[in-house]
Amino acid sequence: MTSELTTAEQAALTSGSDFWRTTAIDSAGLPAVTVTDGPHGVRMQASRGDLLAGVPATCFPPAVASASTWDPELLRRMGEALGDECRAMDVAVLLGPGVNLKRSPLGGRNFEYFSEDPLLTGVLATEWVRGLQSRGVGASLKHFAVNSQETDRMRVSADVDERTLREMYLRAFHRVVTRAQPWTVMCAYNRVNGVYASEHHWLLTEVLRDEWGFAGLVVSDWGAVVDRVAAVRAGLDLTMPGPDEAGDRALVDAVEAGTLDPAALRRSADLVRTMVVNAGKREPGSYDAAAHHALAREIAGRAIVLLKNDGGLLPLRAEGQTVAVLGEFARSPRYQGGGSSQITPTRLDDALTEIRASTSATVTFAEGYVDPDAAAEVARGSDVALVFVGSAHETEGADRESLDLPAEHLALIERVSAANPNTVVVLSNGAVLLTSPWEARVPAIVEGWLLGQAGGSALADVLFGRVNPSGRLAETIPVRLADHPSYLDFPGEHGHVRYGEGLHVGYRGFDARDTPVAYPFGFGLSYTSFAYGTPGGSGLEFRVPVTNTGDRDGREVVQIYVSRPGSRVRRAPRELKAFANVAVAAGATVEVTLRVERDDLAYWDTRLHRWVVEDGPYLFEIGASSRDIRATVTREVAGDEARVPLTEESSIGEWFADPRGAEVLGEAFAAAMEQVGDSTMAAMAADPGMMLMMASIPIKRMAAFPGSPVTADTLRKLVQAAND
Amino acid sequence: MTSELTTAEQAALTSGSDFWRTTAIDSAGLPAVTVTDGPHGVRMQASRGDLLAGVPATCFPPAVASASTWDPELLRRMGEALGDECRAMDVAVLLGPGVNLKRSPLGGRNFEYFSEDPLLTGVLATEWVRGLQSRGVGASLKHFAVNSQETDRMRVSADVDERTLREMYLRAFHRVVTRAQPWTVMCAYNRVNGVYASEHHWLLTEVLRDEWGFAGLVVSDWGAVVDRVAAVRAGLDLTMPGPDEAGDRALVDAVEAGTLDPAALRRSADLVRTMVVNAGKREPGSYDAAAHHALAREIAGRAIVLLKNDGGLLPLRAEGQTVAVLGEFARSPRYQGGGSSQITPTRLDDALTEIRASTSATVTFAEGYVDPDAAAEVARGSDVALVFVGSAHETEGADRESLDLPAEHLALIERVSAANPNTVVVLSNGAVLLTSPWEARVPAIVEGWLLGQAGGSALADVLFGRVNPSGRLAETIPVRLADHPSYLDFPGEHGHVRYGEGLHVGYRGFDARDTPVAYPFGFGLSYTSFAYGTPGGSGLEFRVPVTNTGDRDGREVVQIYVSRPGSRVRRAPRELKAFANVAVAAGATVEVTLRVERDDLAYWDTRLHRWVVEDGPYLFEIGASSRDIRATVTREVAGDEARVPLTEESSIGEWFADPRGAEVLGEAFAAAMEQVGDSTMAAMAADPGMMLMMASIPIKRMAAFPGSPVTADTLRKLVQAAND
Repeated sequence: MTSELTTAEQAALTSGSDFWRTTAIDSAGLPAVTVTDGPHGVRMQASRGDLLAGVPATCFPPAVASASTWDPELLRRMGEALGDECRAMDVAVLLGPGVNLKRSPLGGRNFEYFSEDPLLTGVLATEWVRGLQSRGVGASLKHFAVNSQETDRMRVSADVDERTLREMYLRAFHRVVTRAQPWTVMCAYNRVNGVYASEHHWLLTEVLRDEWGFAGLVVSDWGAVVDRVAAVRAGLDLTMPGPDEAGDRALVDAVEAGTLDPAALRRSADLVRTMVVNAGKREPGSYDAAAHHALAREIAGRAIVLLKNDGGLLPLRAEGQTVAVLGEFARSPRYQGGGSSQITPTRLDDALTEIRASTSATVTFAEGYVDPDAAAEVARGSDVALVFVGSAHETEGADRESLDLPAEHLALIERVSAANPNTVVVLSNGAVLLTSPWEARVPAIVEGWLLGQAGGSALADVLFGRVNPSGRLAETIPVRLADHPSYLDFPGEHGHVRYGEGLHVGYRGFDARDTPVAYPFGFGLSYTSFAYGTPGGSGLEFRVPVTNTGDRDGREVVQIYVSRPGSRVRRAPRELKAFANVAVAAGATVEVTLRVERDDLAYWDTRLHRWVVEDGPYLFEIGASSRDIRATVTREVAGDEARVPLTEESSIGEWFADPRGAEVLGEAFAAAMEQVGDSTMAAMAADPGMMLMMASIPIKRMAAFPGSPVTADTLRKLVQAAND
Repeated sequence: MTSELTTAEQAALTSGSDFWRTTAIDSAGLPAVTVTDGPHGVRMQASRGDLLAGVPATCFPPAVASASTWDPELLRRMGEALGDECRAMDVAVLLGPGVNLKRSPLGGRNFEYFSEDPLLTGVLATEWVRGLQSRGVGASLKHFAVNSQETDRMRVSADVDERTLREMYLRAFHRVVTRAQPWTVMCAYNRVNGVYASEHHWLLTEVLRDEWGFAGLVVSDWGAVVDRVAAVRAGLDLTMPGPDEAGDRALVDAVEAGTLDPAALRRSADLVRTMVVNAGKREPGSYDAAAHHALAREIAGRAIVLLKNDGGLLPLRAEGQTVAVLGEFARSPRYQGGGSSQITPTRLDDALTEIRASTSATVTFAEGYVDPDAAAEVARGSDVALVFVGSAHETEGADRESLDLPAEHLALIERVSAANPNTVVVLSNGAVLLTSPWEARVPAIVEGWLLGQAGGSALADVLFGRVNPSGRLAETIPVRLADHPSYLDFPGEHGHVRYGEGLHVGYRGFDARDTPVAYPFGFGLSYTSFAYGTPGGSGLEFRVPVTNTGDRDGREVVQIYVSRPGSRVRRAPRELKAFANVAVAAGATVEVTLRVERDDLAYWDTRLHRWVVEDGPYLFEIGASSRDIRATVTREVAGDEARVPLTEESSIGEWFADPRGAEVLGEAFAAAMEQVGDSTMAAMAADPGMMLMMASIPIKRMAAFPGSPVTADTLRKLVQAAND
């Protein structure tokens, strides 16, 4: 307990002592501990003068890639490895994972986030946290919440309705908090419905702690605190960076003036102290850089998504097939994004070297971007041409303005594909790029994301078939930016961004409008092929026989999308509710078991202020992607009790839809009819259009109409009787 | 003044005495006056027992049709005629016009509204009000505001951001109030951002009265008042229907208890009294039913939109061309919608009779819907087949669930078009219907809307070429319902509907995403053709030479759409800002003068809380529809002063974008750099990515970072200096 600390000491404990460390309280034997950037590597600042240069550490694949593995187990192993590196560098808390949804493909920080889907995000991030924290190192689940853009990120208000907030933007946070209890949650810079996340009592206290049971501390994003007192009052515990002497003083003054509950400050200080104490329990450690590089390579290989492979052009043969490599990215890899997550890698593989090491045949190279014609000449003489292209610099702090490849990269594809029909495009990018219209010109496309320091070798593994690709899209590749659900409302203006597409984030929006896409969510090819048998199982368990029908071992990602036909609430046509990643040997059949969790079927009811699972038939679509459904199963699910109490403002239609309400109001109507005879009401009741109009009238308002069977006097009695 | 009335008398005056009449105050010599439904006819209740049966009156074309004329002068004449009928029936106020935007084509009451565009709506409604009120009869501009759906209309909250509210949903109200001063404005049933329109002080008082200068009274929609005291406090003056003795008492009690300002009640009573007094000034009148029928026919003829006319199939010849008429609507016309606007017509023309009267050749008929095969046989033998189809019943109180023709109507089109290649589809519908996929099967389509009591003769006028069609679409016909901007958010649920498409209502949304449409806003064919010459004029005046290049006299509707390339704010790609409806004789050229009003170029700035016209080049696209642009003119417009004051929460980027701010902050930066030398700040400044990140940091938040050139102490001085 920190109750023995003075108010001033408590205040000091709730702000940093410098950019990366907490404040030591010598009198209480509390040292300063280090928290530092992740999430795909440990970024330990190397020198005081330069925020960005870090001590060498393994640069694992950024989240855009690790999410494409669709493999929670890999994420857990990454978390463990990061934990080991943290211990080696005396880091108490690693700032990650980032679980914000990719609302728009233009989001500048999308490469640090997992997906446009909250279930996929939540499942993967949970394992990452478990892995990291298994090493005695804390995670920092960020950025809480609705931090979906870089434009005006320190002020912009994400204006989003409650159901969308709950079902989409908070859902992954909820999953990770309740299943992995991260040591810390990092509050976002932005405002949520007008209130800074750092001062958002509903978010930081009511939802995070009271509803979800979060037991750790809330740390600010660096510079996110506007008003220390308001922040502590809302539930923010640790303000970073520090020192913030003025803020510490303001807290003490507020406690003394009685405007801040001393218990609030004490609780924040307690939580910081607990974290510091817990951090002290971990053993110092070391790590095997070569083993971590190998893990980074394994994850990267599993993250690569094969988008197109006409005529089985890939994999390449290790001999007898000459290869032209075009594009500077093959030699100078683009493997991570800019900003706080930038890692100084322990080593760096490039694809060109790894390709040369993979084949006994001739490999030629041209840089390609400055001089695409020369590259085309190099490509012309080869059996296969590999064109390395991708996005311009992606960075924290700025959103992108387009999804197009840079003009010189487009020119390179055009020239090379004209010179050599066997052209493979290899993409390096932190968020989706349009593949239209050039995709029609090339027989093969390899989506290589940002793959971390071992991306070069991982790409060679896939290109030469040492790894059979199994990565799947965690975000939709649209045909046009203008088709994207977020298009009309990104990035907002004048301090506000309306989340106008509501629940229809990513594939949910494309599916809701039945809009064509270039490559759908969940999509990815393999060098082998898989057939699905008839699903078995019962309840929410599904057993799916998956047969590898090709001649190569491979992995399949079986996905279950759910809908509720005839739902009482608006729902997306299909939502990912389970997936399984399974290795299947050539010719073998594996029965894959998937479980949908009942809680994941719930919608947030804004009238009842809680989650509700609807009764009735649910459709479970089992597929290899969101638009490649192999089997459909309908199962009944027992729903939650969800009666909305009838009130004076409930409509006539709602009264009659409720069994008890129908009885009570029916009696009142019958009595009135009998009394009045051939009245206006009777005339109205005989007209179907009129009855439709009447159904929408709240019964209190009906009382204002002449001849109403309900009067101001009988209203209260009716309401009471209906809810008895 | 009603100050001599008792509080109880004042209260009584602010509610009706029955369904349609105000309360008489004999002591003050104030009679009861009648207010009754419009808007396209005078619906005077005939008997006390039946709300819907009316005294016969001219059923003019509902707004869906009259708006398609794009002719303000016709609307003025309709208003005058309605005024005359009101005088003949002793009606003081006619409840219209309805100027809500057609947000969704599913809106059940769209037939009573003009358009998806606020300028077209506002211009037409202004003339209607001027016409009506020129007869000493008051208008009631409705439904104020954002009443865009029937589903849950008495409670649903239209959740809409302020810029959208101002620029789209309030803009037509603003135009009509400021230019035509309607006697009354009718408040809507629904809530706006959570507050009932009937209790919305911001809407009813701050915007309507204080900003726009509305001098009339606000009447409730029938049954829209939930709480009389709250309503009067917000600015609602007259509650309908009555009597509402409990509410009257509540007002008196509230005044006596001091919870309602007596001045508020007095002002409302004053406004009712003024209306009653003004109503007493009009002369009793009479009207010529035959002349009004002729006017209804003229307007209907001008409202018909010729959507397709391949090979010049239309107009039909008056002799020698046998005609098959298929579909019961030709005999039993569908000419108005259901609900409060339903008129008992003085007479009713049907198309079948009028077609028979228009030709000396054989006209055959089959009802078609029950037995489409028989209809096909009738069609097979004729030179031309006219297929009458349309929407099922459209009514106030219920939104539609689909834009498809009824299945039996689709079957009729299919069978008849298979039997006779010269098939003309004639549509009767209150809001758009999909023409996909059947449109490809027929060479001609006539959009006949709901045309009022003379629709049958008007259709014959157009079919036989006595009227050369000149109607234009006031709403987009989409290819699919799912393409519509409102699709994901209509009609909402659980008491809320998010206006997620924001400003992108109707064609603005289709254009913003470049979505194909079946027929664009502003579209309509003629039996002749028009060529546009090079536009002249200067400033905001445009002179457009229009030549009738065919051999028939006709009318052209010249439209100007405006955009502001590179605007500082999000804007639709094109917005209607002027139009002119002009008759051009065959072979003649007319120079059409159009004026864009500078105010109509303004956007609503949510930071400054006012309208702002941006400086700079505007693009004026002059066309025959929103997607048939014939000439583009760029002109400079001088903008409004619109500096946003710099504050501590203004970002570094905003400071440097402001001349004075750049000077002040630049000095502070220079001084800090000099002092600190090679600091973190300097390192950051050298990195373009870092500079981008820094630009978004509010200067107050920068002060929290070590080495910041701005400190908590200097902040206030900087802000003061920047705004001096």
